[in-house]
Amino acid sequence: MKELIRDIHNWPKPGIIFRDITPLLKEEAAFSGLIDELVKEFRDKEIDVVAGIESRGFIIGAAMARELGVGFVPIRKKGKLPWETVSETYSKEYGEDALEIHKDAIGEGDKILIVDDLIATGGTALASAKLVEKLGGTPRFCFVIELRPLKGMEKIRAYKKFALMKF
Amino acid sequence: MKELIRDIHNWPKPGIIFRDITPLLKEEAAFSGLIDELVKEFRDKEIDVVAGIESRGFIIGAAMARELGVGFVPIRKKGKLPWETVSETYSKEYGEDALEIHKDAIGEGDKILIVDDLIATGGTALASAKLVEKLGGTPRFCFVIELRPLKGMEKIRAYKKFALMKF
Repeated sequence: MKELIRDIHNWPKPGIIFRDITPLLKEEAAFSGLIDELVKEFRDKEIDVVAGIESRGFIIGAAMARELGVGFVPIRKKGKLPWETVSETYSKEYGEDALEIHKDAIGEGDKILIVDDLIATGGTALASAKLVEKLGGTPRFCFVIELRPLKGMEKIRAYKKFALMKF
Repeated sequence: MKELIRDIHNWPKPGIIFRDITPLLKEEAAFSGLIDELVKEFRDKEIDVVAGIESRGFIIGAAMARELGVGFVPIRKKGKLPWETVSETYSKEYGEDALEIHKDAIGEGDKILIVDDLIATGGTALASAKLVEKLGGTPRFCFVIELRPLKGMEKIRAYKKFALMKF
């Protein structure tokens, strides 16, 4: 499966190697296999809702929610969700940005599986966990890819987490 | 299921009623039921790949691809896809924007199911169909919601199409 991850050099900026999952998603056997592998880790974990981080996390998260038989909630960039939200800022290379979730997305005590395609520095992951906690939920994480040199897993060390592939 | 669509008045701008599908997505029975209803329409249509339009189309499209047992390809706003793309512009209220798809996303003769949560004026839908055709694929459409007064279905009248709910 790792062979279907495409390396894009110098994207989105010079010096970065971007790990492109689209060749994996478009092959039916690989996409099904990917979702199977991820879901297997969480079948016995009593997940109540999958939360996908915009926007590649929507692809992986929605397919997982369907397979786990649970609902799906989107975590989006600031200003994208139409109803009442809670917000959490995180640091970017230059300045700050924010993620939001609808206030009614999660119930008190819900076990939330936060899904994204990739964890890099962990800034959006940590902000997502805080959003879930603000609404009374308990977060845990699922990633397709972990970029180990960027140490994002350390930033979310307080939480349970899983990554299928490591680079 | 229609009762779980939330009306947001004056969003994203004054005079618009936005149809918010997030209350439907977060209820496990409703989300599963929604995907079942949509997939039922396409089980016998020999779909090769599902193409989801950024970004709510990723949620519906990925879950449908999983259930249909086919691959998933993203159609994204200009500049978001990392590899070589083809591009198609479309008109917005003020000026133009563009959608892109990876050049290797679709093979000659592939039957592509283009998925989005909603069809309004049909601008992004028509641009998506043209992207699929540029790569040699045959597009057809699936929407959760059709906003009938905006007549988007007329803009894509040359193609096969389905919408589950009409407003």
